Amino acid sequence: MTDDNRTPVTVIGLGAMGRSLAGAFLDSGHPTTVWNRSAGRSEELAGRGATVAATAAEAIAASPIVVICVLDYDVVHEILDPLSGSVAGRTLVNLTNGTPRQARETAGWAADHGADYLDGGIMAVPMMIGRPEALVLYSGSAGAFDVHRSTLGTLGTARYLHADAGQASLYDLALLAAMYGMFGGFYHAAAMLGSEKVPSAEFAPLVVPWLNAMVGTLPVIAEAMDSGAGADDDSNLRMQLVSFANILTASREQGVSTELLEPMRALLDRAVTAHRDGGDVPNLVELLRADPTSAG
Amino acid sequence: MTDDNRTPVTVIGLGAMGRSLAGAFLDSGHPTTVWNRSAGRSEELAGRGATVAATAAEAIAASPIVVICVLDYDVVHEILDPLSGSVAGRTLVNLTNGTPRQARETAGWAADHGADYLDGGIMAVPMMIGRPEALVLYSGSAGAFDVHRSTLGTLGTARYLHADAGQASLYDLALLAAMYGMFGGFYHAAAMLGSEKVPSAEFAPLVVPWLNAMVGTLPVIAEAMDSGAGADDDSNLRMQLVSFANILTASREQGVSTELLEPMRALLDRAVTAHRDGGDVPNLVELLRADPTSAG
Repeated sequence: MTDDNRTPVTVIGLGAMGRSLAGAFLDSGHPTTVWNRSAGRSEELAGRGATVAATAAEAIAASPIVVICVLDYDVVHEILDPLSGSVAGRTLVNLTNGTPRQARETAGWAADHGADYLDGGIMAVPMMIGRPEALVLYSGSAGAFDVHRSTLGTLGTARYLHADAGQASLYDLALLAAMYGMFGGFYHAAAMLGSEKVPSAEFAPLVVPWLNAMVGTLPVIAEAMDSGAGADDDSNLRMQLVSFANILTASREQGVSTELLEPMRALLDRAVTAHRDGGDVPNLVELLRADPTSAG
Repeated sequence: MTDDNRTPVTVIGLGAMGRSLAGAFLDSGHPTTVWNRSAGRSEELAGRGATVAATAAEAIAASPIVVICVLDYDVVHEILDPLSGSVAGRTLVNLTNGTPRQARETAGWAADHGADYLDGGIMAVPMMIGRPEALVLYSGSAGAFDVHRSTLGTLGTARYLHADAGQASLYDLALLAAMYGMFGGFYHAAAMLGSEKVPSAEFAPLVVPWLNAMVGTLPVIAEAMDSGAGADDDSNLRMQLVSFANILTASREQGVSTELLEPMRALLDRAVTAHRDGGDVPNLVELLRADPTSAG
């Protein structure tokens, strides 16, 4: 059931995420127009009240706010570039996963053609969309965000970061990097326990509170990073290197590859070598920023 | 103030952790004897009522339960090996950080000389000792753990794992590996944000709830690992490889080294190549266990 008081919304791209976005708009009464490059993705949404546009141009013409969620920025440009004459006065909300540079380029393209632009990063899986725990980060036009705040709030918790359109992507990818680090550590831990036939489900009740407690220390570490000071004696890198060596030795003895952990050992080594006092966490982050050429 | 109804305890090794352990025993009224290889670490504890033993032999003779917390297992053996005739009937509780193999060897040595043996892993920093949030994992003699459960509970939450003395170390190092993975991901994230001069303290309020939410998914992933099934569609590795590529590209564009992330990309690649359906998380853990020779 759509509600004429709600802002009409267009959703371009009907993969799993795009369908969830359109469904959330429909559920909260927004007149919703949908379009997908290939057919066969819109039937269920049409059944729930969505208008299925015949062309991308028709989809863009249908609503003041156009949400784009496709595979990558190549697809974004394939769809939008031929329609540069049709986007003036629209707010383009690009939720496609990409890099800060790609977001900034697209923001420039939108500005050149008279459209407002918001770039967004969805920190949620499709089934979470429409619930407050689905965090969506936005950057770009502050004015457009203010105008469409309640419409965007339909998708989850909408958080505006910065006028620089690249920042939502920067935060998004940084959060994903943090997540992959955590998962990688867990995979290694599971492999170690698996080497002694300990089921992962037996380990989970220990690792969850442990990691939550360690995650709870990040604000203190973050402050130390910002000030350039050591977090405290416990984080001294020379001490960390000793316990790290035990993890590596034990892993090898248990027949577990140390491939996910070796780069952290190498980074700890470099920081300890560079700092006579053993160095501390801020030194690690400096090294990651100082030497991009060492990337594999 | 010691209490004669409490079990006398000896603590060998008075580094920061050993001093905290002895302090917790003193605080709860255990007659406490301490000894350290080098002098000058025991004054404050003596002032709080500890008996300072003149020799390691005297320290071991003083209490039915002897807690050892020194730098590494080399030091454990330097101290204990000459006293093999003095440990019979004692319970040795070795909280020194080491590998499962080292723990098992020491358990064997203790059995050969008539001592009960518990190996422990302290999942806490010294300042947490004595509080319930200080988790200490134990494995080895179940009988000794039962007898001394309340004494060991003085140090924090005491959790017995297994009769195999190596298991406490295995869990300890696995938990540390998981922690280092999480920290490594956070360091990379902080470097990405730092490349745009975003203070880490501004990122912390986003990354903490995000990582806690992701940690909350580990029990489901653990069950999938144990059953060998894919966790769900969202974790399909081929999809993860796409977003992972964005993290790497964006990091390079921002001048941030990808060294901490490359091994996870390589592992995802190997799993996707090996599994026509793209593979899933259990495949990653299998690869870590199947190919120890690939370690750096």
